Amino acid sequence: MSETPTLPPIVAAIRESRRALARLLTRIENNAAAADLAALYPHGGKAHLIGVTGAPGTGKSSLVNSMAKAYRAEGKTVSILAVDPTSPFSGGAVLGDRIRMRDLHGDAGVFIRSMATRGNLGGIARTTADMIRALDAAAFDVILIETVGAGQSEVEIASAAHTTLVVEAPGLGDDVQAIKAGILEIADILVVNKADNPGVESTLRALRAMLDLGHRAERIMHHGQLMSVPAAAVVGEDEAWQTPIVQTVATNGTGIGGLLAKIAEHRAYLRESGVQTLRERASLNAEISERLRELLLARLIERVGVARLQALIERAILREIDPSSAAALLLAEGVQE
Amino acid sequence: MSETPTLPPIVAAIRESRRALARLLTRIENNAAAADLAALYPHGGKAHLIGVTGAPGTGKSSLVNSMAKAYRAEGKTVSILAVDPTSPFSGGAVLGDRIRMRDLHGDAGVFIRSMATRGNLGGIARTTADMIRALDAAAFDVILIETVGAGQSEVEIASAAHTTLVVEAPGLGDDVQAIKAGILEIADILVVNKADNPGVESTLRALRAMLDLGHRAERIMHHGQLMSVPAAAVVGEDEAWQTPIVQTVATNGTGIGGLLAKIAEHRAYLRESGVQTLRERASLNAEISERLRELLLARLIERVGVARLQALIERAILREIDPSSAAALLLAEGVQE
Repeated sequence: MSETPTLPPIVAAIRESRRALARLLTRIENNAAAADLAALYPHGGKAHLIGVTGAPGTGKSSLVNSMAKAYRAEGKTVSILAVDPTSPFSGGAVLGDRIRMRDLHGDAGVFIRSMATRGNLGGIARTTADMIRALDAAAFDVILIETVGAGQSEVEIASAAHTTLVVEAPGLGDDVQAIKAGILEIADILVVNKADNPGVESTLRALRAMLDLGHRAERIMHHGQLMSVPAAAVVGEDEAWQTPIVQTVATNGTGIGGLLAKIAEHRAYLRESGVQTLRERASLNAEISERLRELLLARLIERVGVARLQALIERAILREIDPSSAAALLLAEGVQE
Repeated sequence: MSETPTLPPIVAAIRESRRALARLLTRIENNAAAADLAALYPHGGKAHLIGVTGAPGTGKSSLVNSMAKAYRAEGKTVSILAVDPTSPFSGGAVLGDRIRMRDLHGDAGVFIRSMATRGNLGGIARTTADMIRALDAAAFDVILIETVGAGQSEVEIASAAHTTLVVEAPGLGDDVQAIKAGILEIADILVVNKADNPGVESTLRALRAMLDLGHRAERIMHHGQLMSVPAAAVVGEDEAWQTPIVQTVATNGTGIGGLLAKIAEHRAYLRESGVQTLRERASLNAEISERLRELLLARLIERVGVARLQALIERAILREIDPSSAAALLLAEGVQE
């Protein structure tokens, strides 16, 4: 982690001190790091971001630990961001932190942070993305983003990663498989962990069948619109990434080397195909638009007054005006030109 | 379903003709029904909206069918809206439609609509809410909103209902239970379906333990802000709704009468406690704000030009500007006063 005298103070601080980094992440969680994030941004973009998602019981946390150890053995610095978006109101369990601590504690090249949920899904996705930017500016080579669960939330969070791993395990039952049909479409690499367990053959068969049906989707900009299209439509049928299935036994390290090789291959694909830039463009478009929406709304409410909004809500409760007309009215009142 | 000469044509049409209603729902799915929705709005608000969510394998669809039949026996008209938000890109499986058709087909007092997913989570929640408004204006007494899965998506969709049922079943395993910790917080009534299956006692014990730990949350407005707070903080500890656990066997109708009685009790609670109005206020606030954000962004992009946004995205890809500063710049350029 090199330092140059031209670095902004916050970047120098988080590259030098784990404590400064931890404090910055807390400020990000509390939405109090806007200026820092702007200063960090030019100094990021070098880390490889790896999303790891899958249902509880797949051994995701052990896999993440094994991967971290393998990257460390290659001399790479690693940070792990564990996000639990399953409990929308009260924050979820902290992900396998005890195991993690035992395995990785004391290695200065590894930094671990857990985030229980706060606020709505959009807020979690935003906070996660900002935290990743901080870890990226702190010059980690690899950032592992671990999410628990198998729903839309994971799709949102995984979309911040360059390479997304979806973890399965034998014997979790058909129900879990059914939930994950959508998740497969975001998988760059499928990992069957606990591959020494009975039933691994039927899990592999089920996953191969699903891969035959579905396709990795890419989110791109098309005529100024964000669209989700099959990857083959972006880079051509022959060049499109074929989602591989990798078998691992995280607890004894089996298959981890092969997994890291596949991840490196995917990283090269993203760069050579131009897909990485397409994704960045789509994701920046979504982020800038979202920030603009918030700024514009705050400005409008300031102009018309929150009491005016509340009065229209009361009229809508009485069914005197519909919500869409109420919004149009507030717009007209707020943008007197 | 009475008609008066003063009804707007679209309201008269959907109350008279199932085909007109089906066509309207398709227009809503295609985002081409804005004027109709405004005309409908004053003529809704009478139906009781019941959300039914739970993991696959709980017998949710059979339960919804049993409930529909029981409401029909009481002389009430029923519509069922089945939403599958698990597959974010390609649309999911249609929910138990074959069984449903066999049981309920040919009864003019029942209307069934399935919706596979389109677009993002926000879009699905918006379309679902608009469809519910159409069914409401069509004067159904009861609207059953069925969602598959157990994630954040279901929370969003369930928040459109007055009474939310979370369905469990014995023997689905600890993993599924773990996923649903957050879902319990949105449950007004817990239903243990397949209550004649082995293992029902341990499922009941697990649910009771979870209810002891968690609390039903309410989303309310507080000083103009949307907040999620424990229900007891809104209506007082003694008056707060205590989530009951109801056992059913949907396939033979056992427990369905008791379930409908609990739903009626919850409906009375919502009205008498004032919680229904608090929820409507929060939900209208969120909807009007969201619509305003979209209107404001569209107006701003029209003013500065989409090319200007795209140019800033390219600069952000090169890390010459951060997304937040790019948004602030566009705001300043777009609101020249």
